[in-house]
Amino acid sequence: MYEIGVVHRNIQRTEADVADRLGTFGSATVHEAMGRVGLMAPVMRPIYAGAQVSGTAVTVLLQPGDNWMLHVAAEQIRPGDVVVAAVTAACTDGFFGELLATSFKARGARALVIDGGCRDVKALTAMPFPVWSRAISAKGTVKATLGSVNIPVVCAGALVNPGDAIVADDDGVVCVPRALAAATLAAAAKREANEADKRAKLAAGVLGLDMYDMRAPLAAAGLRYID
Amino acid sequence: MYEIGVVHRNIQRTEADVADRLGTFGSATVHEAMGRVGLMAPVMRPIYAGAQVSGTAVTVLLQPGDNWMLHVAAEQIRPGDVVVAAVTAACTDGFFGELLATSFKARGARALVIDGGCRDVKALTAMPFPVWSRAISAKGTVKATLGSVNIPVVCAGALVNPGDAIVADDDGVVCVPRALAAATLAAAAKREANEADKRAKLAAGVLGLDMYDMRAPLAAAGLRYID
Amino acid sequence: MYEIGVVHRNIQRTEADVADRLGTFGSATVHEAMGRVGLMAPVMRPIYAGAQVSGTAVTVLLQPGDNWMLHVAAEQIRPGDVVVAAVTAACTDGFFGELLATSFKARGARALVIDGGCRDVKALTAMPFPVWSRAISAKGTVKATLGSVNIPVVCAGALVNPGDAIVADDDGVVCVPRALAAATLAAAAKREANEADKRAKLAAGVLGLDMYDMRAPLAAAGLRYID
Amino acid sequence: MYEIGVVHRNIQRTEADVADRLGTFGSATVHEAMGRVGLMAPVMRPIYAGAQVSGTAVTVLLQPGDNWMLHVAAEQIRPGDVVVAAVTAACTDGFFGELLATSFKARGARALVIDGGCRDVKALTAMPFPVWSRAISAKGTVKATLGSVNIPVVCAGALVNPGDAIVADDDGVVCVPRALAAATLAAAAKREANEADKRAKLAAGVLGLDMYDMRAPLAAAGLRYID
Amino acid sequence: MYEIGVVHRNIQRTEADVADRLGTFGSATVHEAMGRVGLMAPVMRPIYAGAQVSGTAVTVLLQPGDNWMLHVAAEQIRPGDVVVAAVTAACTDGFFGELLATSFKARGARALVIDGGCRDVKALTAMPFPVWSRAISAKGTVKATLGSVNIPVVCAGALVNPGDAIVADDDGVVCVPRALAAATLAAAAKREANEADKRAKLAAGVLGLDMYDMRAPLAAAGLRYID
Amino acid sequence: MYEIGVVHRNIQRTEADVADRLGTFGSATVHEAMGRVGLMAPVMRPIYAGAQVSGTAVTVLLQPGDNWMLHVAAEQIRPGDVVVAAVTAACTDGFFGELLATSFKARGARALVIDGGCRDVKALTAMPFPVWSRAISAKGTVKATLGSVNIPVVCAGALVNPGDAIVADDDGVVCVPRALAAATLAAAAKREANEADKRAKLAAGVLGLDMYDMRAPLAAAGLRYID
Repeated sequence: MYEIGVVHRNIQRTEADVADRLGTFGSATVHEAMGRVGLMAPVMRPIYAGAQVSGTAVTVLLQPGDNWMLHVAAEQIRPGDVVVAAVTAACTDGFFGELLATSFKARGARALVIDGGCRDVKALTAMPFPVWSRAISAKGTVKATLGSVNIPVVCAGALVNPGDAIVADDDGVVCVPRALAAATLAAAAKREANEADKRAKLAAGVLGLDMYDMRAPLAAAGLRYID
Repeated sequence: MYEIGVVHRNIQRTEADVADRLGTFGSATVHEAMGRVGLMAPVMRPIYAGAQVSGTAVTVLLQPGDNWMLHVAAEQIRPGDVVVAAVTAACTDGFFGELLATSFKARGARALVIDGGCRDVKALTAMPFPVWSRAISAKGTVKATLGSVNIPVVCAGALVNPGDAIVADDDGVVCVPRALAAATLAAAAKREANEADKRAKLAAGVLGLDMYDMRAPLAAAGLRYID
Repeated sequence: MYEIGVVHRNIQRTEADVADRLGTFGSATVHEAMGRVGLMAPVMRPIYAGAQVSGTAVTVLLQPGDNWMLHVAAEQIRPGDVVVAAVTAACTDGFFGELLATSFKARGARALVIDGGCRDVKALTAMPFPVWSRAISAKGTVKATLGSVNIPVVCAGALVNPGDAIVADDDGVVCVPRALAAATLAAAAKREANEADKRAKLAAGVLGLDMYDMRAPLAAAGLRYID
Repeated sequence: MYEIGVVHRNIQRTEADVADRLGTFGSATVHEAMGRVGLMAPVMRPIYAGAQVSGTAVTVLLQPGDNWMLHVAAEQIRPGDVVVAAVTAACTDGFFGELLATSFKARGARALVIDGGCRDVKALTAMPFPVWSRAISAKGTVKATLGSVNIPVVCAGALVNPGDAIVADDDGVVCVPRALAAATLAAAAKREANEADKRAKLAAGVLGLDMYDMRAPLAAAGLRYID
Repeated sequence: MYEIGVVHRNIQRTEADVADRLGTFGSATVHEAMGRVGLMAPVMRPIYAGAQVSGTAVTVLLQPGDNWMLHVAAEQIRPGDVVVAAVTAACTDGFFGELLATSFKARGARALVIDGGCRDVKALTAMPFPVWSRAISAKGTVKATLGSVNIPVVCAGALVNPGDAIVADDDGVVCVPRALAAATLAAAAKREANEADKRAKLAAGVLGLDMYDMRAPLAAAGLRYID
Repeated sequence: MYEIGVVHRNIQRTEADVADRLGTFGSATVHEAMGRVGLMAPVMRPIYAGAQVSGTAVTVLLQPGDNWMLHVAAEQIRPGDVVVAAVTAACTDGFFGELLATSFKARGARALVIDGGCRDVKALTAMPFPVWSRAISAKGTVKATLGSVNIPVVCAGALVNPGDAIVADDDGVVCVPRALAAATLAAAAKREANEADKRAKLAAGVLGLDMYDMRAPLAAAGLRYID
């Protein structure tokens, strides 16, 4: 976050299998499994509906209106990575489009998460190459000022260290720190195992009030029913 | 709006047939029929395109980051209801997801309108269970602080009393007070009857300037044509 | 921009063939070809995905909550036009819906670009009649106060003169001044010709760093690689 | 909220003495005394710092870009009133300036609360006539379309009935329904009586943890201290 | 607006006396005198209260995060100028601070109007050097990419040509085109002459309803009084 | 950032003398000295103008609508600290007011920086106790859900570790990591030493174009002057 003009070439990635399996649970379940932390702000939206990905973070710090570092980052991508780009100040410019997506995809990247703008939405949808961004904008950018690659960044309010696991879908983007990834995966799996049973009960008309034993604590909190 | 910690069990719902038929006209026509009042702010968007529903309001007042009252509300739902949830302060958390939707649907709810966030968008789209919300967010909520069920609430700028009719589609969400529902339905039907004829004329190239006799008032207002 | 209450009937439109061909390149390429100017703010979004249009601007200046001038504008539309509507103050009301779209389409308009709200989204999608707008809102408007038609307007931050070429797609809306349209078309064509080759190289794994000869300037700027 | 084009001349105002004394407590204390409801959204800000007022609501429903009804409302003002103006759609125009303020003040109004824009800030500050508004804008408005006076309105998310008590200061604006005003006053007075003692203890270094007996519930909730 | 990388050295400024006298009326009166056009969006706020200035525009087009062109613009400033800076994309960076203000002031500039951020607020307030900006931010900018000086720009939604008159105060910023400046001045003077009389009447308790003869048109529009 | 329900009692604070002296330079100079990183988003504004503070961070992670952890944090404050509070989701509630400020001040805190709302602005201004916040709101909060104290937090887009140095003034809030504080202080001092000379030259009419030797690089970049 504090080094400008550097590229870290050797980063420790979350174990590929763990990162992959986290993606099967989706951002909401993983976020719960994390203890409700690590989520990016909801301003981050997918450019098309239905994508669900996970991978290991290659991080980029951009300057406003300048996408030079995305080209630098391309070289650091390995198959299974998700590129996470922060900007030193809020900027909706279209830092990323079809050409960079072609390059990122050729390098094995699964997605881009960018706290800025994206363009060529139609082409990216057709590829498909999923992007979560703060904005969509046709405006291009210059290549004039250094940022960094693979340093810790804050992207849409979430701290992302290079190598962390990223889970993104229609509900948003969550970052799982590498050190917590295995435990989070286990917790997510446990949560999901419980959900099938709950879903069946609720579908059968059982109330959450009863299934979660909420009536006593609600009464204790003073809830009054009025007929 | 002023009672915290209460659940009103007996509410007077808009007549089912009236509420149902209002939905066939859509929010724009109903809003016009109301005299252009009762619309929620346009920040309320459907989580997927194409849904068009109407029903009778079960209202909920939530605390920020807390969805306890949605569980309490589930028990008050009857077939044909639309749950309308306000929050005491702006909050984009994902108060509602697949499990609650399963429960609401089992109880007969047709939709949720929430001045907050929603999650599990992919699952809700598949069910389908339509939601109009201010945001989409994977962030979950706690169950710690009381709000209320079936009190008057202000949701996205519109006053909603329990039992009012709610009409929601791609254009937004409008609340029709129970006492005005039948008259609004009649006015909407009258509007729509006129529209088919207008549409045909306009499609044939007739100008609104002529069809609505606007040329004289425009001239009276001082409009000048310059060649 | 400064004349209220006037309609200019004779405007000089960008040559139809030039306006048409600009649309084949899309807003991002055209914006680049313009030297990265002329783009509307990214708050302008299409009401449905996938539309890509171009045409010649008929401009409208509206008053907040009042769509009278859209009816006046309809008469000035010629086949191949795109109506561009500005508002004297930010307003999300639904100034435009199915009836006006029917009329505009009958007159030969290809699209509406409005720095305000739009309604009847489902019907417009079905027609189809594409709209780029700041908001979607069921709220209707009055017909009480004059604006103007075919004067220069600022729409979402971009100056649009009547007759300018408009290019709009999923990435946004760009305005090409009539006097620059032919040169912009040539520049866009040249850009696109280069892109196919670049795309193929990048897809084959060539890095932008090498293809664009960025390594030397990056080093000159002080970029350091850390292993 | 649902009657357009009407002026209610006879409204029941909160007892003057109660409305006056509520103002001495400020919006935060009154809002707490209400059970944390009735607050307008924080986008409502005073045009200058330091004003603290209370009074009885004369309500106005405006159309966007149109201040006709403020002139109609002036006639309904009695000494001790606070005018509360809602708009049928978000609009930042300067609906109110020095001339209307002169008139309102002459009629005995204490302040304006408007979910829109205000202008002539320098003159209003000099008078002084306090205004809480969503925006400051030099843009004037027309007088063309009816709204209403003294109907229930939703202003910045709060329901305000004519005659309700309004309390406004640097922290925001709260509406106290007439029927709850006396009880709220009593509750506010009780709160404030407790605060002096608490303030003294905290100033002396006593911790809220101890003063409010929070240590046990924190431990029960699972709080862990790490050295 | 369409030329990047140019500096126009010879611009035709609004006559100094006209520009100066426009400032005595303030932005609201001038905006009315213009026919309610030419106002920048209300997001443009003064960095301190009470400043009221007018002058002739030196325009600047900046790139996001880059203030190079402000240094270029300094050389073009003449006594009585107001610098108006647009940015090619929304950016809140602090493009301008104490050092540039010292330079601008030494050159005779009266103020800066910038559709971006400003910093060193305390020092600028002490100088004093008034700034109207979209944001305040400590973040500095680079000097790497060309924009232009003295081309037409769109600043906060208003078209500004070099040499136009700018009027700015607590209510906002209005641009008066050079060709309209003298007529606008006359219209503003006429408005203000009428206001003193109106103010006195309103202060004496006369209602706008009577002074402006509104009762008949209100009745014609259908306003109903209910007792 | 990932531990919920913990309080770290032993944190390593930036050396007091370094933290104190950083404050004399202000946020803009310190941010430049950091290499233009570490700044919070400009939505963070002081509740009154003119405050300039620095100190060592005690960090707090709050839940939306819940200020329980601010009471827990009070016990961890030492003289010279600045409390930095993040919230797990955007929330404008008034988490902090006069009573907590009294307690914080008694413990030696110099300021609060909170990515949420603040209330009792008049009382805090009178104390004075400076606060930088995202909003001002009279709305109070509950004490029901655990967060943490003295863990790393992301506040308004900036990562803050407990013990980091915080510099806040009218331009915003910057966080200086403890490990970089001494070097940043030296760099800031060096910057400021240069500024006096520059200021004098600019005040004397020397252009930045000449003082910074910009004419050659501008020409190299292609800047053209047109007479």
